[in-house]
Amino acid sequence: MEDAVLKILKKPKLKNTVLIEGLPGIGLVGKLAGDQLLDELKAKKFAELYSPYLPPQVNIQEDNTVRLVSMEFYYAKGKKNDIIILVGEFQGITPDSQYRIAEKALDLAEEFNVNKIFTLGGLGAGNITDKPRVFGAVTHKGLVGDLKKAGVVFRGTGAIFGASGLLLGLGMHRGMDAICLMGETHGQIIDAKAAEAVLTVLTKLLEIKIDMTELEKKAKETEKQLSKMSKMMEEQKKAQERQQRFSEEVPTYIR
Amino acid sequence: MEDAVLKILKKPKLKNTVLIEGLPGIGLVGKLAGDQLLDELKAKKFAELYSPYLPPQVNIQEDNTVRLVSMEFYYAKGKKNDIIILVGEFQGITPDSQYRIAEKALDLAEEFNVNKIFTLGGLGAGNITDKPRVFGAVTHKGLVGDLKKAGVVFRGTGAIFGASGLLLGLGMHRGMDAICLMGETHGQIIDAKAAEAVLTVLTKLLEIKIDMTELEKKAKETEKQLSKMSKMMEEQKKAQERQQRFSEEVPTYIR
Amino acid sequence: MEDAVLKILKKPKLKNTVLIEGLPGIGLVGKLAGDQLLDELKAKKFAELYSPYLPPQVNIQEDNTVRLVSMEFYYAKGKKNDIIILVGEFQGITPDSQYRIAEKALDLAEEFNVNKIFTLGGLGAGNITDKPRVFGAVTHKGLVGDLKKAGVVFRGTGAIFGASGLLLGLGMHRGMDAICLMGETHGQIIDAKAAEAVLTVLTKLLEIKIDMTELEKKAKETEKQLSKMSKMMEEQKKAQERQQRFSEEVPTYIR
Amino acid sequence: MEDAVLKILKKPKLKNTVLIEGLPGIGLVGKLAGDQLLDELKAKKFAELYSPYLPPQVNIQEDNTVRLVSMEFYYAKGKKNDIIILVGEFQGITPDSQYRIAEKALDLAEEFNVNKIFTLGGLGAGNITDKPRVFGAVTHKGLVGDLKKAGVVFRGTGAIFGASGLLLGLGMHRGMDAICLMGETHGQIIDAKAAEAVLTVLTKLLEIKIDMTELEKKAKETEKQLSKMSKMMEEQKKAQERQQRFSEEVPTYIR
Repeated sequence: MEDAVLKILKKPKLKNTVLIEGLPGIGLVGKLAGDQLLDELKAKKFAELYSPYLPPQVNIQEDNTVRLVSMEFYYAKGKKNDIIILVGEFQGITPDSQYRIAEKALDLAEEFNVNKIFTLGGLGAGNITDKPRVFGAVTHKGLVGDLKKAGVVFRGTGAIFGASGLLLGLGMHRGMDAICLMGETHGQIIDAKAAEAVLTVLTKLLEIKIDMTELEKKAKETEKQLSKMSKMMEEQKKAQERQQRFSEEVPTYIR
Repeated sequence: MEDAVLKILKKPKLKNTVLIEGLPGIGLVGKLAGDQLLDELKAKKFAELYSPYLPPQVNIQEDNTVRLVSMEFYYAKGKKNDIIILVGEFQGITPDSQYRIAEKALDLAEEFNVNKIFTLGGLGAGNITDKPRVFGAVTHKGLVGDLKKAGVVFRGTGAIFGASGLLLGLGMHRGMDAICLMGETHGQIIDAKAAEAVLTVLTKLLEIKIDMTELEKKAKETEKQLSKMSKMMEEQKKAQERQQRFSEEVPTYIR
Repeated sequence: MEDAVLKILKKPKLKNTVLIEGLPGIGLVGKLAGDQLLDELKAKKFAELYSPYLPPQVNIQEDNTVRLVSMEFYYAKGKKNDIIILVGEFQGITPDSQYRIAEKALDLAEEFNVNKIFTLGGLGAGNITDKPRVFGAVTHKGLVGDLKKAGVVFRGTGAIFGASGLLLGLGMHRGMDAICLMGETHGQIIDAKAAEAVLTVLTKLLEIKIDMTELEKKAKETEKQLSKMSKMMEEQKKAQERQQRFSEEVPTYIR
Repeated sequence: MEDAVLKILKKPKLKNTVLIEGLPGIGLVGKLAGDQLLDELKAKKFAELYSPYLPPQVNIQEDNTVRLVSMEFYYAKGKKNDIIILVGEFQGITPDSQYRIAEKALDLAEEFNVNKIFTLGGLGAGNITDKPRVFGAVTHKGLVGDLKKAGVVFRGTGAIFGASGLLLGLGMHRGMDAICLMGETHGQIIDAKAAEAVLTVLTKLLEIKIDMTELEKKAKETEKQLSKMSKMMEEQKKAQERQQRFSEEVPTYIR
């Protein structure tokens, strides 16, 4: 099995295409923004990315069938730009798999002639603010001007972890243009406001409009599910530790 | 060495074959059910799966010879279906190895033209019940009807970890039909009752009969061995930590 | 870089050859026995095994040159058997690397037509005894008889971890004869007595004689070095955790 | 993606070339010395080494563009020797990746016909001294004489971890000459004095002169940034643990 497998379900004809990444990260800002965009644009799934470095897990769906954990690519046609949205429930679970999965996502971007990548995330500021700013980072200086006009704040040094960073870092080596938009957030809460701030900038740049009233509700549901899940994971972990020790024989450990 | 090695010991002629997975998991429900089925059907071993992602360990057997830790495939001829049973003492010890091992097991399933896969497991409900229900998940909606008739409960969303999940998720991508049967269980005990509930459904579906009176005894023995083993593992771990630090020279650590 | 690299320094002509493994394990019994055998037989180094799964470390030697951490193969000519001895300071540091390294050692065994493998280790009994027994496990039943005559005790089920187990388990799959000799030991002390018991059996089987008066002294020195090293490792660990966090920029963590 | 990728930006013509490694390690002695040398010699970057075994991270630079985490190779022309300096913010994050990355660095060294390698590091002595000594280790005995003349102390056995050790150990197997210079240091502080001691020896050997007045200032800044970063990493870790548990469905954990 490859470290990451791309499965193209159908091949839409796209032009002037941008790729938007909305995977889970700080404050779930990127994921909330990506999911909202996907729903509002009624984007259609056209590709999946599987990897042994995603959790070894299937999810049971409403119709009782299972779905292997994966990242998903959706597309929507637009006036100015066609849009590909990359979403998922997880990032790669080992540091090196984050590189390998990002490379695979860039392969898809190249296959569909993506000419700009936007990665969405949160910037953990440690405080709660009513008007979260949106910070930016880019692959090429020429990209800064338009972003500043759209209200993006640039404040110099810092670091970006995971897919939101690697799609820029590895994309740059392929000569691609990429932008990271980060909503100012506390860091320890699921932050609909920061997601809205990021989407406000993004939609301005893409010259599209989407409704954002559902964002707050989504964040609350997520919060609830997350706390439920947290408890279950704890129990699961205990159970697994126990099972791991199982063996049929009464063992005498020798080495 | 490959990530998983399949060793076919003999090649039985099988027809209308189902694969049943009974590896250790929550409450050891799947393992107990798989082992019981294997004993009652007097199934014969015909293949082994080795992997560097199983513990680096051999087990000493009654006759003083060793057996490398492995997963094992048994077969039994039946009226309606020939049956392959996949059992073992461990699942892959890293998350990604669970994928790689499941793919290998599916290779064997394809080689023997398996037309349906059943994975057996427990669903940790956190409570103890006298009449555990059996929950189901499937690869294709068309499979639900017959299962409901056999008493399987479908209750929407959830997640399935490890081999019981991946054989469905990865099998689906190969166009295979697969069903997960999960016995309702507490999660922290080795549960013969849940295993019996799962076997009751499975044998009804396969139109076979097996005795289940040994299940309770097996669970108790397992419980005993597990607690013994737990203690030994603890000691072993302490000893290993100590040895890991060993070096011949008096070292001066420099980096 | 391969997962394990075999470097043959010279190719001695050996006949009727046995391979003896004495790597660190429980009570350091195998290592003490292997090192003693090597010294007493004045065995000569003829091959090294490197691996990225040994610690990323070089050792500084008396003459101020470094030696990359490795496993080493020595040989000695004998009357009944020529002997290859496998020694080292470490076993593979990940579970899967233990498999990969054992396979490489077996490659060497095959290249030199080894016809029997002895692995030496300790069996952690949790108690201290004045007359430690030597327990055995084998790849083929036919090997048991001669071992019993030499005083080896067989007591049924158990498990053997690491190289001492895998050389049997993987060797068996190559059709090789292999025997594990385990000295009864407490588990938490470096045990010269258990090593002597193992060597007494082994030398009887090989019809050779070696002096064992140095064993106790070696064990004491090792004990001392180990405790020194333990302290240094602790400090080293603290230092490393600190350094791992280093980065040139004042970072703002974003994902 | 390869385990380590070498990207040669330009190919300077170098002769009689030495490679100097100054990556982070104990007391950050090697890194401080390498960075200082680089600045003072006004060395120019000509190659980068990327790896999925470096942290999955990009750093935002003053000009708002990002830089993928990497090791970097700089060169400077000299009278006696041309010099390549290897610097970076991290070493490989898994033990085996330290081997794979060191092999790649040696590939570059061979491509540029490097005839001697110097690795710079600290030797954790546990005490603070005003006049730190510089300890040495070498690949070949013939190298010791000149080093002693330059004031290097040789004191027999010890161990060297990470790149500073592996470049010697693996370089030796390629027939390369390599020297490790280790400044005596406490181990728990960032040590400009030890870096100065190392540089004093190195520049004497290379017959060059550099100013070292900035070293103390650099160490202090690093100390400050490190403590800031430490706090942020802690928060980041908490946030990540939380996110890792996220999933869209209310899960029921089954295995």
